[in-house]
Amino acid sequence: MNFEKIKQARYILEQTSHSLKVQALNAMADNLLSCKDSILKANALDLQNATHLSVAMRERLALNESKIELMAKSVQEIASLPNPLGQILKGWQSESGLRIEKVSVPIGVIGVIYESRPNVTSDSASLCFKSGNVCILKGGKEAKESNMSIAKILQDTLKKFSLPSECISVLQDYSRESVLEFIKQDKYIDLLIPRGGEGLISFISQNATIPTLKHDKGVCHLYIHKDSLLEEAIKIVINAKTQRPSTCNSIETLLIHKDIAPSLLPLLYSALKEKGTQIKASQGVQELLPERVEDLESEDFSKEYGDNILNIAIVEDLESAIEHINTYGSKHSEGILTRDIRSAEKFLNEIDASCVYLNASTRFSDGGEFGFGAEIGISTNKLHARGPVGLEGLVTYKYKIYGDWQVRG
Amino acid sequence: MNFEKIKQARYILEQTSHSLKVQALNAMADNLLSCKDSILKANALDLQNATHLSVAMRERLALNESKIELMAKSVQEIASLPNPLGQILKGWQSESGLRIEKVSVPIGVIGVIYESRPNVTSDSASLCFKSGNVCILKGGKEAKESNMSIAKILQDTLKKFSLPSECISVLQDYSRESVLEFIKQDKYIDLLIPRGGEGLISFISQNATIPTLKHDKGVCHLYIHKDSLLEEAIKIVINAKTQRPSTCNSIETLLIHKDIAPSLLPLLYSALKEKGTQIKASQGVQELLPERVEDLESEDFSKEYGDNILNIAIVEDLESAIEHINTYGSKHSEGILTRDIRSAEKFLNEIDASCVYLNASTRFSDGGEFGFGAEIGISTNKLHARGPVGLEGLVTYKYKIYGDWQVRG
Repeated sequence: MNFEKIKQARYILEQTSHSLKVQALNAMADNLLSCKDSILKANALDLQNATHLSVAMRERLALNESKIELMAKSVQEIASLPNPLGQILKGWQSESGLRIEKVSVPIGVIGVIYESRPNVTSDSASLCFKSGNVCILKGGKEAKESNMSIAKILQDTLKKFSLPSECISVLQDYSRESVLEFIKQDKYIDLLIPRGGEGLISFISQNATIPTLKHDKGVCHLYIHKDSLLEEAIKIVINAKTQRPSTCNSIETLLIHKDIAPSLLPLLYSALKEKGTQIKASQGVQELLPERVEDLESEDFSKEYGDNILNIAIVEDLESAIEHINTYGSKHSEGILTRDIRSAEKFLNEIDASCVYLNASTRFSDGGEFGFGAEIGISTNKLHARGPVGLEGLVTYKYKIYGDWQVRG
Repeated sequence: MNFEKIKQARYILEQTSHSLKVQALNAMADNLLSCKDSILKANALDLQNATHLSVAMRERLALNESKIELMAKSVQEIASLPNPLGQILKGWQSESGLRIEKVSVPIGVIGVIYESRPNVTSDSASLCFKSGNVCILKGGKEAKESNMSIAKILQDTLKKFSLPSECISVLQDYSRESVLEFIKQDKYIDLLIPRGGEGLISFISQNATIPTLKHDKGVCHLYIHKDSLLEEAIKIVINAKTQRPSTCNSIETLLIHKDIAPSLLPLLYSALKEKGTQIKASQGVQELLPERVEDLESEDFSKEYGDNILNIAIVEDLESAIEHINTYGSKHSEGILTRDIRSAEKFLNEIDASCVYLNASTRFSDGGEFGFGAEIGISTNKLHARGPVGLEGLVTYKYKIYGDWQVRG
């Protein structure tokens, strides 16, 4: 990495106007479309070398025309979002008569580390570019030809706008040593965004000296209180578990108040069966089901299945539900179904999670659903940005202080 | 550390009302005053064991009646600040009809690591307590009796309000191994705040796996543009360098536009001489001074003197000043003195620092001067909190989402 050139690029990009960035992004989208063939050719090479990968991994890696069109569309959408920079977030006059403005500015240099999906290249590059940040992309080795081909198209577009190609940089050394060195460059890189599985995230957490915006695991819960509506509860459980079981905002465990379990469970059971959900049931739940299912073991409570598998357990009361969730949850998305205001507020206040839901599916934890437009991810950080993160997670602020020749007394 | 008890304390504290916390804080202040003697006794023990320390270190460590009164006053002031929790920072209705509220909540458990000043014990404990966070305090070994005595008084007050004493916990093992283990407890501790010298900060940055709110070094600059007022400029330089040279917001280097240097330097020289400032001058500056001073070496540009020493250099133009500051500055506080709007805005926009000043002393970078009330420190982080940090740097947020039984389509 030529960090000197990256630093120069960063100062140029910070001073580039929003309208020029929008033009450049739209041109990037156009060029992705017009260079479809070269991207597909590069992708074919990756796939050719990827015979050792699983079918699922190959699917993530594989591009086709419509996937490239989606990539371009996403870049256009990012172009059309409001400018996150130069916003006066707060402003006031101090006692000494200084006018203080708290203004949003780029973070600087962002390292994005990801795995096999090539679309993350154009997504991350355009989110960073839009927010005035230089990015250094480090994709998966298995996608290197595809990623380089996409990055090259974006870099060529930058040049046409007289912007340094280092605004979108690529780390091309895929060795573990090189990555380890990369995540310790806190002198040059201001933020790391790892996008990938648990292994990647934990490797980075343990070794990076650069601050990290983590998207860690989602062990989410729904708790059905004794007074919940029945049919609506079943609809929400089905949505939260089966709509897209691989997502981090799908639930892993359903907790049911003991009073409502007898009327709810038989109905819920048939609904889940219809969706092919594999149930793991506690002893109390087993007794209320029409047939025996797999037993729920206590270690299941910590698992993120990423699959159509659901733990079901009965709790004595709201307090036990809260305690259970605060013990096993990953502080991502947690919901209660109830008609009672006091129980609802107790749950929403006492659960420690980035998103707490009353009478809605946890699947709504998403930048798009929140109305943020593009999403960088769902942060499991407690600092800086928490929950679904839009462009505003990619900016910081500075204080601009306007004096009239004051000194401190 | 009994992390199980700390976790329990944390949930209790999160649900404790603001008015009870205010009462407890005021009682803590009263008890610090009424237990003055026992604090002074403990402090005498520390001083007795501290024969190996420098005079400056012993001064920091030593308490007296008026210092304890200041400690108590600071706790009272923190009690009187507005509640930083439960603020609805944003609220809106999503496309699916969900009502989303972004609400400020405590971060959780905060580790504070500091050096010899015992007042940091009561300051940090009350700031964390006010913001609903459990703190774990790790002070300097040389102050252990004083710190324990202060912490004990605060803990005894907590008990009187039926709050767990673990809300204010103390790490009593001072070995390096124990600290190293402590800063890797990311499962139990949400944030680390190191308050101390460069050595401490860099040890923590390199080794902690817990996110850190850093208060790193301040290498600050003033740049005097060619059209600056003269007398006012001298007043500001004197203030920014000599009012309290040991602070991080004092300047280390003064850059002067070549056109104004001949008229400014002789006047400035006598003003600085009067204040006993030791000047290090570049070749061009030497030529304009009435007598020879120490030569400025290029490595001086990176030093944080913390003392009444000032580098002075001449620059060709505004651009060179900006480049110099972005190269050597520590992104803390940087100022320009000018009457020209365009030059001012260029400087304020292009300098990468948490506080950028027009026509004012950098010494204003301070929570109190900004109007934040109590200050946790001046953050050199780019993420989460930057610049002077008040209580709002000790909170995070959660999304409370109110549905009407919606599922995601």
